[in-house]
Order: sequence, then structure tokens, then C-alpha cells
Amino acid sequence: MTNDLFLRACRREPVERTPVWMMRQAGRYLPEYRAVRAKYEFLTLCKTPELAAEVSLQPVDLIGVDACIIFSDILVVPEAMGMKLVVEEGMGGPRFPHPLRSRSEIDHLKVPDPNHELNYMMDALRLTRKRLEGRVPLIGFAGSPWTLATYMVEGKGSKSFRHIKELVYNNPRDAHALLEKLARVVAAYLNAQIEAGAQAIQIFDTWGGILPQEEFREFSLRWISHVLQLLRRNNIPVIVFCKDCGHSLEAIADTRPDVVSLDWTVDLGKARDMVGSYVALQGNMDPALLYASPERILAAVQKILEKFGKGSGHIFNLGHGVLPDIPVEHAKAFVQAVKSGSPKYHK
Amino acid sequence: MTNDLFLRACRREPVERTPVWMMRQAGRYLPEYRAVRAKYEFLTLCKTPELAAEVSLQPVDLIGVDACIIFSDILVVPEAMGMKLVVEEGMGGPRFPHPLRSRSEIDHLKVPDPNHELNYMMDALRLTRKRLEGRVPLIGFAGSPWTLATYMVEGKGSKSFRHIKELVYNNPRDAHALLEKLARVVAAYLNAQIEAGAQAIQIFDTWGGILPQEEFREFSLRWISHVLQLLRRNNIPVIVFCKDCGHSLEAIADTRPDVVSLDWTVDLGKARDMVGSYVALQGNMDPALLYASPERILAAVQKILEKFGKGSGHIFNLGHGVLPDIPVEHAKAFVQAVKSGSPKYHK
Repeated sequence: MTNDLFLRACRREPVERTPVWMMRQAGRYLPEYRAVRAKYEFLTLCKTPELAAEVSLQPVDLIGVDACIIFSDILVVPEAMGMKLVVEEGMGGPRFPHPLRSRSEIDHLKVPDPNHELNYMMDALRLTRKRLEGRVPLIGFAGSPWTLATYMVEGKGSKSFRHIKELVYNNPRDAHALLEKLARVVAAYLNAQIEAGAQAIQIFDTWGGILPQEEFREFSLRWISHVLQLLRRNNIPVIVFCKDCGHSLEAIADTRPDVVSLDWTVDLGKARDMVGSYVALQGNMDPALLYASPERILAAVQKILEKFGKGSGHIFNLGHGVLPDIPVEHAKAFVQAVKSGSPKYHK
Repeated sequence: MTNDLFLRACRREPVERTPVWMMRQAGRYLPEYRAVRAKYEFLTLCKTPELAAEVSLQPVDLIGVDACIIFSDILVVPEAMGMKLVVEEGMGGPRFPHPLRSRSEIDHLKVPDPNHELNYMMDALRLTRKRLEGRVPLIGFAGSPWTLATYMVEGKGSKSFRHIKELVYNNPRDAHALLEKLARVVAAYLNAQIEAGAQAIQIFDTWGGILPQEEFREFSLRWISHVLQLLRRNNIPVIVFCKDCGHSLEAIADTRPDVVSLDWTVDLGKARDMVGSYVALQGNMDPALLYASPERILAAVQKILEKFGKGSGHIFNLGHGVLPDIPVEHAKAFVQAVKSGSPKYHK
């Protein structure tokens, strides 16, 4: 591999500089992505390996990131379990018009064969891996069981999360039945991704932060841990990202992923002091900083590099996905700032 | 005063049981509130002391809470500074159709005389205090400078908070000019509320949690601290509520309010260990627990009482405002559970 900085940093091995990529880096802030999206629907992109590979490679070619994450959506998994998934333009993201509301609906969810119902993902990984020609590593991903369950029960994003919380608080057994099924499906999906060529895996827990700490551990982290145990990890680094869960950093690290990804409300220096001796850390610049000037972005990058300090075990990233309306030049300035500013921390 | 449990708990003085109230307790979950709102617009309620007093008293009479918070909205303050405020039915809350976008707009904001432009609030407090006849204490409130600035610059709630973050990251001097002005206005407003009869004050920082920790301290907490210094507190307890800021609990407590209010993602027991020797704590049940059954609510209340443990210095509350679509019987069950379950912690 030409550039394996990302993989080495995940394993806390020495690197010459800090690797950098961005969550949602294959996305709307790129004019080249918008050009593809103008011709095809969102789910068509996810399900057409040629197109998924094309947009996955764009940030590698155009922005110079040190890792390539496969273009997809976490909600294709519930779709493969039998739930109708709808993406309408300007309707605020994908949604399930028939959300899960009963135990019998939970019990009737299919357990898909990832190499059948989700084979387009595996084809997209194989094709992208081939096209990368070893330039940078390829990252596969899935939503956490809790985050998938939240979308499946709510049908879409929510302000109060009434339905998933009613399930958790009134009917924890049914909640765990759903989560256990999802953990098996997610683990099989990620194992298939590894077989198809993913060189690292990230688990996204977008909604862990809506729960009190104890419920976060019982309903979200417990099932992430179960997925980790079911993974055939070999030497493949696994990254866990629980947004808005800085309160449980040690508990997350104790599930023993290779990397814990941090949102921008966590202090990276304190996080390293707490868990940096046994996991690598990914993050954690406020994505809204990419609205600011390139000079301001440079200063923010330097501050975060300084917070982590000397040595390996840091993958630079944003604290959440790159926002769709930032100027593409600012994304380039961000990546360049990490590349130019980080070598001194690795001497 | 018949029932001063709330004031005594704020001061960490002995109480016979833990006092309880709910943020947004005068609100849509109450049929009696909806009956009033069916006849009058939201801002008419805020600005008509007779109506504001009526809905403020409803939860005291109907739910049995131990404190009465005046019915109002934090955004009447920017309106009094000259910004047009619009509330349209079903449009997702109040908004400013002409948000602040330049330094000259910041400099042109008026510094209102709270006893003139906001005198309806003072009349509402005086009338409500009179009607309470000493049954329970009356709480006044305001938004934090940061939270008001966020609404004024964004115009409404936001997902990316692009505009306020551009201001903070690209133009911190202008941000501080706005925040300094707001701190003076908020302090004068709260001092007038105290003169008009408010027996406790709560400062709501709804949006402190969108910032990284250092920026939270520089742009939100610093100006809350400035407001506290400008308050003529006498013996009036001051509560500070910074939502999603559990990462900075000690820094918040170090601004020396009487009470720190906690959202449901903070562990109340750990919080007491950290800062309970010098501030009281308010909170912190997940508001979505009021969707659950009364039995489940009772169990959740008992768990939180146990987390705080023995002794005074706890005001029971939700971790954020009561949700508009919970059954009113569940709110009653919540208050009753605190009343019946807490005496044993005060023996």
C-alpha cells in the first residue's frame, strides 16, 4: 500500500504524520458529487457499485484524504431486513413510512444474507478497493444496533424520540429482542464487508446520546460490544463512534475497539489521558469550523494536534459528518493543515 | 409562605421531602392550558399579565408542583431590543424573520428598560405572586446571552448553526460585542424581575452544548458568569441550566449559582460528588419517561432519588422541558412519586 498512515495510526504504530479523513467525505460539498447526484437518485448511488465506487473515490482524488470510506447509507440494512425505505428530495433524509411498532413486526424482520440482499455493497467495496490500487485504505461501515433501531421505530429523525423511548422504558424486553437481532445482522454485514475487502470498519452510533448514561450502556453500548465480539477482526481495525456520549468514554473504550471516534464536545487531550493507552482516538474538529476562513481552520487544526500531543494513535477527522454547504476549498485547507502541521508531533 | 421546600433546597437547608417542579410546566400537555391557547395567540399570553398569571398558576393548582415558574418566552428580550419576533401556528416555534448578520445591526440593538418595554413581564410576576398567596415560590427566568445570541443570529433553531458559528469562529470580537450587550440586558431584566417579586431566578442556556468545551466557556459560560455578577441577588436563589454541557459541570458550578440544573445525560450521583458540596442540583429525569407507565415513572423517580442520596440540596425536575404530548396523568404521577418517595432521604 502506498499510504498506510491511517491503518498504522489505528494500531498506534509510529507514523510520519497524522492521517486525516472526513466522515461523509463523499458528499454534497463536492461539486463532482453533486454532478453525479443530479443524474441518479440517492439509493441508486448506494446500490450501483460503479456509481458508489466513483463517488467514494472523489475525496481521495480531489481532497487528498488518507482513507476512503465506501459510499452508502446505514439504513440499507433495515431495508434488507424487509422495511420499505423512502428517500424523497428535500424531505430531510431517508425515512421508513411504516415504522416498527409491535413485537410481531420485530419478530417478522428478516435476517438477510449480506452476500445476497446486500451484495451491491460487497460489489461496491470490491470495485472501490480495486480502483484504489493501494493508494489509501478502504473503510466499511454500519450503523450501531441502537441507532438502526431508533430509525426503524421512529421512522425518521425525531425531536422527542417518543416511540423508541416508549419501547425502551415500557417494554425493554422487546427492545432487546430487536437489538439482539440487529446485532447479529450488523455483525454478519460487517464480516461480509471485511471479506469483500474493507481494510477497516467504523460503527456509527448517531443516537446513543439521546439516552441517560445507564440506558446508553444497556441499550446501545452493550450491543455494540456484542457486534465487536461477533466480528472476525483479524488485523482489521474497528472504529466506534458514539455521538454525544463523551460521558461514557471509558465504557466505550472498554468494549475494546481499536479506535474511539470523538465528537467536538470532548476534549481530545483529556480523552487521551483517560483511554489513550489502550485505544487510538479519532476526531474531533467541529464540522462548522469549515465555514470559517482557511486561516481560522489552520489555527483550529493546530490546536487539536497540540491537544493530542506527540506520538501515534490519532486519526484526524471532524467531530461528525462534513456539512453539505461548506466551501470545497475549506475542506482542502483542512486536510492540508493536518498534513503540514502534524509531522513535528511524530519526530 | 405555606410551602418553601423549593427555596430551602436551593440553599441546601434541611427539608422534609424533595421539592419538585417541571420546566415548561405551564404548557400544552395541560388541557386547561390548551383551552386558553385556543382563544389567544402565544405572544398575547406572554404579554397579557392576567393570562400569563392564569396559565402560570395552572400546574400549581392541577399538578401540585412546589414552585411556580412565570409563563413567558426567552425571545421577548431580543424583541424588546428591537428585533421583529414572529410566532406562527405549526411553524415550529418563535422566529426572527430578520436575523442579525452584521456588526452594525448588533450595534443598533436597543438596550431596553425592563420596566418599560418588558413591563408586561413585571406585571405578570406581580399578579402571579399575589394570586399565589404564598402557596409556593415564584420563579423568574431569562435565556443566557449565548442562547439569545444564537436565536438572534440564526433566526430560529438550526441543525448546523452555520451563522452563529461563523460569527464565533471568524469574528469573535463581534460575537463578544453582542454577548456583552446581551449580558447587560439580561442582568437588568432579571434584576427587574426580582424587584417585581420573583423569589428565584433560572438562566436557560439551551445552546451551550453546540460548542466545543473551550468555546462553551469563552462564549457562553463567561457571559453567564457576568450576568451573575451583575445580579442583585440578596437571598434570591439563582439556577443555571446549560443543556448538553455535562462536560463542564465543575466550570458551571464555579460561576457560583445557588443551583446547577442537569439534563438527563448527567449522572446525578457523580454530579453530587463533584460539586454537591457548594451548589444544589436540579433535575434530571429524561422528559420522555413521562411517555412511560406510571409504574415505570415511579421506578425512575426512585432511582434518581437514590442516586442523589440522603440530605438536602436536590430539587427534582425533568432534564429539560415537559413534552407537549405526554398524558397529564403521567405528570401527576411523576410529582406524586417524588412527594411520596423522598421523605426517607431527609430523616
